[in-house]
This record gives sequence, structure tokens and C-alpha cells, in this order.
Amino acid sequence: MNKVVIIGSGNVARSLAHALPYCGCAVEQIFSRNLLSAESLALEIGSDFTDDFEKISTDADFYIYAVSDDALRVVAEQVKAKSGIHLHTSGSVEMNVFEGKKENFGVLYPFQTFSKQKLADFKNIPIFIEANSQKNLDIIFDFAKNISNNVLKINSLQRKEIHLAGVFACNFSNFFYSIADDILRKNGLPFEIILPLIEESVQKLHFISPKEAQTGPAVRGDKKIIGEHLKMLADNKDLCEIYRLISGYICQKQLVKS
Amino acid sequence: MNKVVIIGSGNVARSLAHALPYCGCAVEQIFSRNLLSAESLALEIGSDFTDDFEKISTDADFYIYAVSDDALRVVAEQVKAKSGIHLHTSGSVEMNVFEGKKENFGVLYPFQTFSKQKLADFKNIPIFIEANSQKNLDIIFDFAKNISNNVLKINSLQRKEIHLAGVFACNFSNFFYSIADDILRKNGLPFEIILPLIEESVQKLHFISPKEAQTGPAVRGDKKIIGEHLKMLADNKDLCEIYRLISGYICQKQLVKS
Repeated sequence: MNKVVIIGSGNVARSLAHALPYCGCAVEQIFSRNLLSAESLALEIGSDFTDDFEKISTDADFYIYAVSDDALRVVAEQVKAKSGIHLHTSGSVEMNVFEGKKENFGVLYPFQTFSKQKLADFKNIPIFIEANSQKNLDIIFDFAKNISNNVLKINSLQRKEIHLAGVFACNFSNFFYSIADDILRKNGLPFEIILPLIEESVQKLHFISPKEAQTGPAVRGDKKIIGEHLKMLADNKDLCEIYRLISGYICQKQLVKS
Repeated sequence: MNKVVIIGSGNVARSLAHALPYCGCAVEQIFSRNLLSAESLALEIGSDFTDDFEKISTDADFYIYAVSDDALRVVAEQVKAKSGIHLHTSGSVEMNVFEGKKENFGVLYPFQTFSKQKLADFKNIPIFIEANSQKNLDIIFDFAKNISNNVLKINSLQRKEIHLAGVFACNFSNFFYSIADDILRKNGLPFEIILPLIEESVQKLHFISPKEAQTGPAVRGDKKIIGEHLKMLADNKDLCEIYRLISGYICQKQLVKS
């Protein structure tokens, strides 16, 4: 049974800590620079905890770093354990953040958005892995396969591109849900009325590609409606520009397609 | 039992034609200017059909126009039946497209995206209604309540705003799924790997508002990652500008919030 130390106590750490015991792993210890957070998460899953870098267990098989990108470099430096494989979970930090600090290291990037409100079901979350040697890659692959049904070996360049794709598909789409929310509220309507539309738009993508699924005034080249919408947005210059740019781009992509 | 004539044979018409018989309505006739489409849909549901404006039934309770925005004005003119209530299903065409042509009219706008591949389940789709008189509004309300559990009376201005919200939340979000698809393909990865992320991003919105759900480099003000992403997009000027504008806007909204 693999022994795991989790470095971090945020949303990713918490979801991992809860999932690993169901994946044939023992979570030995939770480390966090915030003692209360470490203790709280450790109590939830019945593991040890510490806020002291010196007291981090030195006999684990895997050290999983689920900390912010900014903290990663410093934390990787301060974790003294040289044994085991050290894995970070970031979409954008290079694997070599561990170079010269640890002997065996890699990346275990779960491609998902994690929330306080909800534990993630890792079985259906794609996990992208990298390692500093073929041997470590094989070990990480076997480990990750216990966590997810969808483990892919990639390189750092691919990971950066995957992360960028996620920013568009998740962060930027959510921004538009937020704009829709603003518009609805201003008109006395609750956000809930748009959820069936959003959900169906996503549901479609199990059957057809996003390009085939594209609907709306821009893809129809409906200048009348686009003009009306720009007028409705006229008091918000940035939003007007975003609408104009995206409509133009959809229109242009459509021309390339047909 | 309400007798309904459906004008149109596209995705909205087809979903409605299949749903109405389960809502205590009889679909009497399908009209389409394309005889084959009219016949095909009529056969699916066992109704009459025609492509001849002169042969449109004159004794229906409701005439539901599910045709393109562009066609609506001409079609409304050519349907001779004066009896019954005439309803269009568009998000952006004014109700008064029927003015002077019909005595009783209104709007029945189902807020959903409709596909060839799939019939819609109207029970959970919000339906927005308008009418040219209080009496007609009451009749349409009773009719629509049989179709959906979520019927709301609105005015034309609100409908235009709802439609605009839909463009952001559905059409523009889908555009970003399509950008993500492009990025993944270029890196030899299938679109399916991003679906769990997209679905979870939407799932969250049942518990928290889109503003609370916002994650990513822009909301964190992570200039390093934003800079890297802009470099990665450098060969696509439009996309670069879209990324820059949206990140700036998310950043700015966040400042307003905090």
C-alpha cells in the first residue's frame, strides 16, 4: 500500500485526501503552513498532521504538493524528505521546480475545478502525468491509475496548452455566465432560469463538436441582431468590445469552415 | 383539448410537435414551405401536413410559429387563419410582428438550445410568454403551464435582454469550448478530456453564483501566467486580444467585488 504525504490543505488537497484511501493508498500526513487547516483536514480523514517542515514524514512513497503556484517553489525547497516521488498538481508550473531539490519527481495534474462545497470524484477526472525518468513515469502511472480511469502521459509543453484550454473552457465561460447573471438580475430575473440552457449547451458536446454546436446571431451572420445587442451594451465599452470581437471571430471561423 | 397548428419543421418545431401531445394538446397540422420536411415531421407524430398557405387549418386554438426570425414577418402575413392565438417562439422578434395581421397574438419563447439529434424535455425549460391583451395572456399562461413547470410573464424588452444573456451564456461560451477544442487538437488531445472540467464548472452554479465560482489566473491577478498565455496565443491576434480583454475585465470586476 502506497504511503502518501499531502502538502497543502486547500480544495485540491482536501479532495485528494478524501479520495486516496479509496484508491489503495494510505494518507500518512497532512502538512500545511496553517496548522488549523492541517488539523481540520487530518481529522476529517484520520491522518497525522503538521505545520512544521522539519516534522514532515520521511518514509512516504509519494509527496503530493497541492499548494498555490506561487508557494510551490519555496515549499518544494523546504520539504526535507529526499525519499519517495515528489509530485506537484499545477497546470502551469514546470516539473523542474523540483530539480536539484529531490531525486525522484514529476507532475500529477488533475484536470478539474475543485470547490470547497464538494469533494471531487477522481475516477472520471483526467489526470496528466510527467516524471523525471521513465522508471518514475511508470511508477506514477501505476499510482495514478488507482485514482482515475483516465491517466495520460504528457510533457510540460502539452500541460501548459491543456491549462490554457481550461482557462478558455472553464474560467472564460464562467465569466460569460457571470455577465448573463448581471443582465438577468438587472431585469429582475434569477440566474436559475438560464441553467437549463447552459446545461443543454454542454450536454450537446457529448454528441457533436463545439464547432458543429455553434448557434446564435454571429454564426448566422445576423447583423441586425448583432447591431441591436451592441446598442444594448453601449453603456459598457469593454463588454461591447468583447461582444464585437467574439462575434466577428465566430463569423470569420464559420466562413473558414464552410 | 387545445388544437395546435405548428408553422415550421426545424428543431424547435420538431421538439414542440413531439412534446405537445403529452401536454394535453392535439397537433392538428404541420405547415412548412418545404413539403418533405412537413411530411416527415407529420409522419413522426401522426398529424396532417401541408406546404400550402391556403390549406392551413382555420379552426386551431393556437398557431405556433417556429420559423427563423427572417422568415417570421412574411410567414405571419401569409397564414390566412384569423382565429386562434398566434404565437411566435423567437427571442428577438417583437410581438407586434403580428399587429394588424391577427386579432389574438403573443409570444411563447422557450429558453433553450434545440438540436436535430435530440428532442427537448420542455418540463424543465423556462417558457417566457407575452400577449396582446390580458385575456390572451391568461389563456397562453394556462396553455404554457401544460408544457413547462416554469412559465414566466415578461415584456418584449425583458425578452430581448434574456436573449442577450443567452448569447453570452450559450453561444459565446460554446465559442470558448471551440477554442479549447482547437488548442487540444493541436496538441494531439481529444476534446473529451475537457468535458469533466466543463461539466463541473456548470454543476457548481447550482450551489454558488458565477461570480463566486470564478477561478483562474485573471481573478487571482496572476500576471505571470497571463503573460505566458498571451505569448502562447501570439500567432493569433484576435484571440490574443480576446484573452487580454476578458482577463482585464475579470480582474477589474474582482476589484469592484472586494
